[in-house]
Amino acid sequence: MAAPDAVVNIDEKLTTVTGHWSPYTILEFNGLHVKVVKVLGEFMWHDHPETDEVFLVRSGHLDIEVESRSTVSLGEGDMYVVPKGVRHRPMATEECELLLIEPAGVLNTGDTATATCEKWV
Amino acid sequence: MAAPDAVVNIDEKLTTVTGHWSPYTILEFNGLHVKVVKVLGEFMWHDHPETDEVFLVRSGHLDIEVESRSTVSLGEGDMYVVPKGVRHRPMATEECELLLIEPAGVLNTGDTATATCEKWV
Repeated sequence: MAAPDAVVNIDEKLTTVTGHWSPYTILEFNGLHVKVVKVLGEFMWHDHPETDEVFLVRSGHLDIEVESRSTVSLGEGDMYVVPKGVRHRPMATEECELLLIEPAGVLNTGDTATATCEKWV
Repeated sequence: MAAPDAVVNIDEKLTTVTGHWSPYTILEFNGLHVKVVKVLGEFMWHDHPETDEVFLVRSGHLDIEVESRSTVSLGEGDMYVVPKGVRHRPMATEECELLLIEPAGVLNTGDTATATCEKWV
């Protein structure tokens, strides 16, 4: 994470991200983390019982399957909030670059502990 | 503000913004508001005693004079957090489009009540 009081450029940070589904925290405010992440393929179904999760697409296209509603389709500049407790599954057929906002310490797999999600804290 | 569970496009929302220094709330999550705003010229010195304030430049260039440090210079894709309680003054020599994130109900003039800031709730 950048030092407090630093200017952070989203695209510069995204160039340093390796792999997919591995968010990198770039800023903290009010106990929340702003993260950049590259995604490709399908993630797992999960929810976050204690927090909403914010998605902002920087480049590419992201679909989010959301329980009890039609799939959400996000292009560049689109934002979407998955409400707390709502099960969802992000997926991207081509690489997509995102910002995520969620409380510090939240796993983006929700409460499911996996080897993968240890990167996501 | 968009309905909960809606996809919101930042640039579409910015096209609907009229005037300068008048933020428009486009999303809410965890009691926070995401706002779009166009700015031009100098704003007033102020602080937010109870919250950090997040700036994300969508287009153009923003300078933020910040008490006790050198001026912060933000271009497209740059993010910056003004810590709670720190006096600051945003300014833009040409029109700049921004995202702001701050708790619902926060005035972007801090605790100074003015006719202008009534738009900013």
